[in-house]
Amino acid sequence: MNNRDLKQEISDRTKHINGIIETYLPKEEGYAQTVLEAMNYSIHAGGKRVRPMLMEETYHLFGGKEDVVEPFMAAMEMIHTYSLVHDDLPAMDNDMLRRGKPTTHAAYGEAMGVLAGDALLNYAYETALLSFEKTKDVKMLSSSIPKALQLFASKAGIHGMVGGQTADVEAEKKGLSLDEEKLSYIIENKTGALIESAMMVGATLANATREQVACVQKIAQNVGFAFQIQDDILDVVGDEALLGKPIGSDERNEKPTYVVLHGLEASKEKVKTLTEEAVELLKGFDGDTSFLEEFLMYLVYREK
Amino acid sequence: MNNRDLKQEISDRTKHINGIIETYLPKEEGYAQTVLEAMNYSIHAGGKRVRPMLMEETYHLFGGKEDVVEPFMAAMEMIHTYSLVHDDLPAMDNDMLRRGKPTTHAAYGEAMGVLAGDALLNYAYETALLSFEKTKDVKMLSSSIPKALQLFASKAGIHGMVGGQTADVEAEKKGLSLDEEKLSYIIENKTGALIESAMMVGATLANATREQVACVQKIAQNVGFAFQIQDDILDVVGDEALLGKPIGSDERNEKPTYVVLHGLEASKEKVKTLTEEAVELLKGFDGDTSFLEEFLMYLVYREK
Repeated sequence: MNNRDLKQEISDRTKHINGIIETYLPKEEGYAQTVLEAMNYSIHAGGKRVRPMLMEETYHLFGGKEDVVEPFMAAMEMIHTYSLVHDDLPAMDNDMLRRGKPTTHAAYGEAMGVLAGDALLNYAYETALLSFEKTKDVKMLSSSIPKALQLFASKAGIHGMVGGQTADVEAEKKGLSLDEEKLSYIIENKTGALIESAMMVGATLANATREQVACVQKIAQNVGFAFQIQDDILDVVGDEALLGKPIGSDERNEKPTYVVLHGLEASKEKVKTLTEEAVELLKGFDGDTSFLEEFLMYLVYREK
Repeated sequence: MNNRDLKQEISDRTKHINGIIETYLPKEEGYAQTVLEAMNYSIHAGGKRVRPMLMEETYHLFGGKEDVVEPFMAAMEMIHTYSLVHDDLPAMDNDMLRRGKPTTHAAYGEAMGVLAGDALLNYAYETALLSFEKTKDVKMLSSSIPKALQLFASKAGIHGMVGGQTADVEAEKKGLSLDEEKLSYIIENKTGALIESAMMVGATLANATREQVACVQKIAQNVGFAFQIQDDILDVVGDEALLGKPIGSDERNEKPTYVVLHGLEASKEKVKTLTEEAVELLKGFDGDTSFLEEFLMYLVYREK
């Protein structure tokens, strides 16, 4: 697929996923209307829906053909979105703009920002649990869905994304010295955990074997790590017009990154190695991995 | 049971429940240690464990005999605790003390307060999902536990507790005029939803019939409503020494309460009617309802 076709394919899939997410969003009515509006506002501000896209494609790779994956796809985006809403709060990164629009607390006030994040996090579980309504297959009900839920919850929480956020906040606020192991922990959890979750949940719902899920996890770990290093690379050498934000902010904020620790060339090399390994592992699966391969390369080598 | 025996029985059960909760708390280790400490700090600051107590007793009432209820009991207390941690944040009620101890954000900083609440909310689901490991019964796995999880999630979220918090914050911050319907919505959701959840999850895990669960819901609604009105009554006529806080704060804060709307006598009458109805409904069940009856009366007619 050439670059133009790939972009069109991704754009089509984003629209398809937005259609799915839309069916799971709450109605904006009743006495909690303000937070319902804030929840939907923050979801609608979203981008390409990378995580649901990875989940759906991995589900199909292992032969999944039902719509049982759809509540999880919507739930995944809700978890990702709540984490951004709370990350933007004054007590955290204190960001007033995201993708050129006011952040949720900037638009609805700080109390509503806290509550909208809480509501989205909880609604992610309400939504994922709707997968039980999508099948009558006893193995799915009693084993695959419970396993997928456990993965989903574990990767989002204190031993996953929230753990990464915690270490990141502490590293930035306390100005702790840079440390290879701690930096890896932050990248693997703050950025990587939801990418792992997306792909592993997809595989699990399609009843992939334990070995296959482990291999999917390794692929996702590489992609998450490469994705984050590329983010840090772009902060140094990116095109401000393409990025829509000033470059060099990590250095100004004394933010610990892989690039700061290892330099630009070693970072580029690392992205390359991680991505090649992920693509090799993908090729080892029987199904059609062509879109996933191209999508992973696209994600990692993006310019914005 | 006389009052002294009842207090002893409740105290014994609180200890028993604390033992269960303890087994589900995360270890304080690794790079996210600060938030892990903050999570456990906020849980350990807790009180009588009213919600898990109601859950376990309702589970037993309908013949439940397994430990599948235990992860849900711990999860219930985690949800309740996260809601207090976030309620206490500067953007919300801005409380620095709870039960005479520094609130979580007061002890660990505001960013850690946000993250500890998020982590606890997510950990509640990680914990409740461990119920799948507690049984091999296919009906439990494929039906009762999923139903209990759906109830649990729905009552905690935007159509339950978070909805009530939202309406409450708006009513206080915007100084909206008092309105019977909105006040009922706030009480039923902010206070009532988790009490409903506790008792309905207990009944559901014990495979109570749909009619029995509906009756349990009605009982819980009455108790939640009476509990909140009693709270508001104590704010007017309570003993400051017993309460451990100054009375009259609702009036000073122009907080909309049932007492403000209906006066003290009508409020006391309402508590009495609601509680009598709840106890009558309880007596309609076959099992031993004596502890639940006394516990509900104790909760409603407490002096602190």
